[in-house]
Amino acid sequence: MAGISNMQRRAFEARDAIELISDKWRIAVLHLLAAGDLRTSELQRAILKVSPKVLTQTLRGMERDGLIGRTVHPVSPPRVEYRLTVMGRSLIPPLRDLCHWAKDHVRERDRARREFDSSKS
Amino acid sequence: MAGISNMQRRAFEARDAIELISDKWRIAVLHLLAAGDLRTSELQRAILKVSPKVLTQTLRGMERDGLIGRTVHPVSPPRVEYRLTVMGRSLIPPLRDLCHWAKDHVRERDRARREFDSSKS
Repeated sequence: MAGISNMQRRAFEARDAIELISDKWRIAVLHLLAAGDLRTSELQRAILKVSPKVLTQTLRGMERDGLIGRTVHPVSPPRVEYRLTVMGRSLIPPLRDLCHWAKDHVRERDRARREFDSSKS
Repeated sequence: MAGISNMQRRAFEARDAIELISDKWRIAVLHLLAAGDLRTSELQRAILKVSPKVLTQTLRGMERDGLIGRTVHPVSPPRVEYRLTVMGRSLIPPLRDLCHWAKDHVRERDRARREFDSSKS
């Protein structure tokens, strides 16, 4: 079989990319910032279930991965705003397609699981 | 802010979908079966680094999630073949787009990480 090592490399790259978004808070932040820049407090209010500590870790991780940028406005108290980087913005279309796929198939997956589990019991 | 709970729900659905593929072996199996049905031994040969035990677990999990189907041909010894289901096949286009995104941005992410880490040290 030709091209297997290529396939394997691509699968590892894909796994790498998926790690960038394999966190529900990251997905929520990407969705929110796709609509416009937001302050930490606005993100906190928008993502009701995230704790401030986890939100901070999420934002820091996404900044480290180059998905979002952080601007500190020199006012008192300092205003911190987050925005998508060019790279983060380029992730929105494929992420959105995957979200549509998810929405369209979540019930089918649940039905498949029930059928599989009942066929094994 | 309107539509936040909708956004939150969508993010959770997306997280759910991403769990379906957040495993490098699953991605490799999807890529391989997209090109045609394969026997367990052919998948094993194609995915060099996976252990037989992990491959079996991967295939079972994907079957349970409704992504792949399994046909046992009544020959001696029985021949087991895996194929993508309609649902599994429908995941290939968005997965492929994400893989292209990954390939195009893996270096940029690595560079962002290096810059972030050196700015903090």
